Amino acid sequence: MELDFVQWLGEHAQRDPRLLKGIGDDAAVVRLAGRELVTAADLLIDGVHFSTDEHAPQRIGRKALAVNLSDLAAMAARPAGALLSLSLPRSGAGGLSPAELARQLVAGLLPLAEEFNCPLVGGDTNTGPGPLVLAVTVFGEPTERGAALRSGAHPGDALLVTGTLGGSLSGKHLDFTPRVDEALRLADSADVHAMIDLSDGLSLDLNRLCRASGVGAIVDAQCVPITPSIAEAPSPLEHALCDGEDFELLLTVSPEDAQRLLADPPFDCGLAWIGEVTAGDAVLLRRADGETEPLAPKGYEHR
Amino acid sequence: MELDFVQWLGEHAQRDPRLLKGIGDDAAVVRLAGRELVTAADLLIDGVHFSTDEHAPQRIGRKALAVNLSDLAAMAARPAGALLSLSLPRSGAGGLSPAELARQLVAGLLPLAEEFNCPLVGGDTNTGPGPLVLAVTVFGEPTERGAALRSGAHPGDALLVTGTLGGSLSGKHLDFTPRVDEALRLADSADVHAMIDLSDGLSLDLNRLCRASGVGAIVDAQCVPITPSIAEAPSPLEHALCDGEDFELLLTVSPEDAQRLLADPPFDCGLAWIGEVTAGDAVLLRRADGETEPLAPKGYEHR
Repeated sequence: MELDFVQWLGEHAQRDPRLLKGIGDDAAVVRLAGRELVTAADLLIDGVHFSTDEHAPQRIGRKALAVNLSDLAAMAARPAGALLSLSLPRSGAGGLSPAELARQLVAGLLPLAEEFNCPLVGGDTNTGPGPLVLAVTVFGEPTERGAALRSGAHPGDALLVTGTLGGSLSGKHLDFTPRVDEALRLADSADVHAMIDLSDGLSLDLNRLCRASGVGAIVDAQCVPITPSIAEAPSPLEHALCDGEDFELLLTVSPEDAQRLLADPPFDCGLAWIGEVTAGDAVLLRRADGETEPLAPKGYEHR
Repeated sequence: MELDFVQWLGEHAQRDPRLLKGIGDDAAVVRLAGRELVTAADLLIDGVHFSTDEHAPQRIGRKALAVNLSDLAAMAARPAGALLSLSLPRSGAGGLSPAELARQLVAGLLPLAEEFNCPLVGGDTNTGPGPLVLAVTVFGEPTERGAALRSGAHPGDALLVTGTLGGSLSGKHLDFTPRVDEALRLADSADVHAMIDLSDGLSLDLNRLCRASGVGAIVDAQCVPITPSIAEAPSPLEHALCDGEDFELLLTVSPEDAQRLLADPPFDCGLAWIGEVTAGDAVLLRRADGETEPLAPKGYEHR
């Protein structure tokens, strides 16, 4: 549903000269008093994105901020502040009263806010009949190079990805480190043409980046970095392509920049050259034998 | 619950030199690249703040933005953008599918966004098991005089209120006009010492303003402007003091500024001088016979 709705919204929302990049990227870019502000919002629901029956509220509160920081990372923006709005179940959850639940959620969020220099500046708290809902909005500032958009990929670009992919649903989706620092270092050491965070799986998010840029891509199957814990599982590549919630960065740079970055990566989490951007609109996977097949968007479209 | 939680949050949240005014006012004020940004968030829940069984989605979507614009008004800030995050019930609501519900909510929000020059720049859309939840974040810029806070009232100040109070729950709470323009004109024509929007009732919100400023107040019962539709109802004054969701502005200015403003109000919605700010911390109501009694915070504390 979301894709249709986002498209509908893009067609109906007001045009505004202050809105440099509106609906349809990881975050919006707004011009305010001559400066650019980057802002994004993500909402998480009990039973969809986490489970209060299984997960400690601290991890849930942390995740609610982390997914938003990941959106800022995708724009290569420095976090500046966050707002948290809660819909707390009247009867509590996970054996906690609404008030205690709220405190533990925030207790999990605050250390991440401090780590990323993104103070919690406001929000809203309500109780209601439904399950726990956390809505976070973050804002930040782009670097001097401007925000990294999904739409800047050129044919011939190298396709890079941070970290490793797949298997996030076994736990990493709650405890991942948003790639904010990595994004800033990438933007500092190279001309990032396009970037997106991998929230819904490489296959889906790569298709989004290609559509936004009006390009195609070929991914080399054997170059996709697989999370070690799933390397022995059945179809690890499928997991890496489709699991979603990796929250790694997918970006495109010139081949020269890619060579430089790979020769001396500006961070420790790993950086892999997984393919190239092509003219046209075909998004393809090249298997080890050289055969290509369409890389259909099969991600985790719960967002 | 909210007051305790907000206090707990204020004690635990990170101090940050960029955060000029954090948790505990109508909106936060953040310094970003040398400029002040005002930002606020409000979350509305089906069955608490509106009912999809009774109210058209367009009115609900409009209200979700309007309550946020009212927070910007309370800071005398110019709106600059909004983000909307939705938790849509999987089974739909009000006879509509989740997708159609989302479209109608936004169709109600967009005209207000346009009217107040506050473009919808982003957000998030999810479906889940619970009732409809709308979480909106707005941001804006203060005027040259800086943001109007709750904490600037001085003993001797005149206490002013816009519009009329009471009876909002019969419908106005969905269709009210946020006092953004009025707030900007007030800030332009006078030195506004303190301001708050009346979301939870005059008695509760006045107590909040007084606590934030470290002052008391006396309200003259006969000066409180009563909404005409409830003037003949039993206890209209009680409604005006406690109903909540008036979304008018309560502000304090010097008596000289009050006289000037009342002599030539800079807008048409009405402006009444309802009392004065006092030293101490007593918040009192003076009846027509001159007797005073405590004006206890008896508002609508669902926010």
